[in-house]
Amino acid sequence: MINVAVDAMGGDNAPGEIVKGAVQAVNKRSDIHILLVGQEEAVQKELASHTYPKEQITLVQASEVIETEEPPVNAIRRKKDSSIVVGMNLVKNGEADAFVSAGSSGAVLVGGQVLVGRIKGVERPPFGALIPTEKGVSLLLDCGANVDSRPSHLVQFARMGSIYMEHVIGISKPRVGIVNIGAEEEKGNALVKETFPLLKECKDINFTGSIEAREIPHGGADVIVCEAFTGNVILKLYEGTGAALISMVKKGMMSSLRSKIGALLVKPALKETLKAFDASQYGGAPMLGLKGLVVKTHGSSKATEVCNSIIQCVTFKEQKINEKIKECLDSQAQSEKKAEA
Amino acid sequence: MINVAVDAMGGDNAPGEIVKGAVQAVNKRSDIHILLVGQEEAVQKELASHTYPKEQITLVQASEVIETEEPPVNAIRRKKDSSIVVGMNLVKNGEADAFVSAGSSGAVLVGGQVLVGRIKGVERPPFGALIPTEKGVSLLLDCGANVDSRPSHLVQFARMGSIYMEHVIGISKPRVGIVNIGAEEEKGNALVKETFPLLKECKDINFTGSIEAREIPHGGADVIVCEAFTGNVILKLYEGTGAALISMVKKGMMSSLRSKIGALLVKPALKETLKAFDASQYGGAPMLGLKGLVVKTHGSSKATEVCNSIIQCVTFKEQKINEKIKECLDSQAQSEKKAEA
Repeated sequence: MINVAVDAMGGDNAPGEIVKGAVQAVNKRSDIHILLVGQEEAVQKELASHTYPKEQITLVQASEVIETEEPPVNAIRRKKDSSIVVGMNLVKNGEADAFVSAGSSGAVLVGGQVLVGRIKGVERPPFGALIPTEKGVSLLLDCGANVDSRPSHLVQFARMGSIYMEHVIGISKPRVGIVNIGAEEEKGNALVKETFPLLKECKDINFTGSIEAREIPHGGADVIVCEAFTGNVILKLYEGTGAALISMVKKGMMSSLRSKIGALLVKPALKETLKAFDASQYGGAPMLGLKGLVVKTHGSSKATEVCNSIIQCVTFKEQKINEKIKECLDSQAQSEKKAEA
Repeated sequence: MINVAVDAMGGDNAPGEIVKGAVQAVNKRSDIHILLVGQEEAVQKELASHTYPKEQITLVQASEVIETEEPPVNAIRRKKDSSIVVGMNLVKNGEADAFVSAGSSGAVLVGGQVLVGRIKGVERPPFGALIPTEKGVSLLLDCGANVDSRPSHLVQFARMGSIYMEHVIGISKPRVGIVNIGAEEEKGNALVKETFPLLKECKDINFTGSIEAREIPHGGADVIVCEAFTGNVILKLYEGTGAALISMVKKGMMSSLRSKIGALLVKPALKETLKAFDASQYGGAPMLGLKGLVVKTHGSSKATEVCNSIIQCVTFKEQKINEKIKECLDSQAQSEKKAEA
């Protein structure tokens, strides 16, 4: 049995779609117990309209809600009875293994670091986003947790990301690439130039060198490592460009009678193709290196994405990802000690 | 009359499409004189198949070609008789006002800085790419010239970029945005936090604050300022995501008989829409702050893009962009002196 705390109040479609997603998850799997955190009355009202095994969902009261616009550090500090703080504390106290939220990214990040806490040895827990590619999905990290990272942080991102992609997503020997502005080793800014040789030395990852941004949509690497400012730019541009192009294609198709008829004919096939280019089927963005799993789903998440994010937590627990991260960091620390001696 | 040196040997489609583009330009405008730089025999052979006013194109011999894979600094130093070095020297010596090349970006960058040289007062000449948006076109700079820039460089990019967008592209009071990972002033990495207040103080630009990467495709700013590593990532991801999505849409349309028929019907309308999302109609990427204009067009450029890039040089000269940049920097230097006194 795995206990997943779910933020019932976070995101644009809360609590309706969140509750629906939680119900979907427990209807699919009997080994999940969900702690649905939020304003009891509102959540109870949503729950009442669904059929599900009652013993698999428990309501946890949280009277406050952190809004997206609130400065995260303040929000976490002041709103002690918010769904995010209450949910994170459930993980901290061991009552939940994981926490899923579609709420404020900033608050989830700060809460993860401050409330849940880092695994010993993890320097900076990165935010990893699963992004769709022509070949499936890649893990981009750090995409927003720690700006101005140091080389040693990026090396840890590569290690933790590899473990995640191998054991949660199921890609054997995931290819690790570092985001760069050219394919050659001598290219890049100071951070990349310093990090590149360190990644090359890593024996526990499958480092394949630099990856140029244009190769990302083609699935040029499974684990894409970069500093958080760059990562956040990539993530947002990725989503923005996709949305803009799809809206232009739609507009183009509606521009004449001829194209409108054509649009009706291509619609089913196109929908199928574009569905493949949607990472939400794999779940949300995991924050790695914390004492429990924290997953951030899109603010616009619907029930399916919430459900997938909850199920992603089961794999994370079953595959003992945190134990693997600990082992990996311990063996690194030991080999560093040996090298010093 | 404006003299434009054109690299006849650069890019995937050289010399054929380059020569064709040059011919198109002189057939369109009688005020352009083109110095076509390259291996005389090959270029002459291409020229022979076209009709054009002979006095508007002069051949300039250059026996060597710089390949894309060559390390740029070495290439510029060693291949003294390459089309890029010869063309740049024409600008340096005042025999040409501008140089257009579809060849190695690295060599064009290095050549621009080393051979053509900076305008007095310009700290780092940025590479500015014209990127398509839903609203038209934006100038992204720096997108590859100087990694690890300082705040004062970004301020100059904003100033030069504003002059370019106003007088070459014709956007009155262009909105200047700095690439950031959130809309608030306190967000960002160290560079952005330091640059933001400096841009706010600039009275000669229309600074509108931070721009998140997802707003770029929607045309959220006319001049988009960032450090070159970030800029290069944006540019390449922009092109990569667009290409990947369009290829997926095409694939989707070919997946069934029904969708194939639909595709035939939507094709003309879609082509028209996607054409609008193509920046090559505005010309190539200008390198700003040099003593002459250097324009880099895509390696895959066809004749139309080459022709547009040549015509872009005319506007640049007519609008006296470099004089305006000089004035702008001089007035800045003077006001700084006053502030010190």
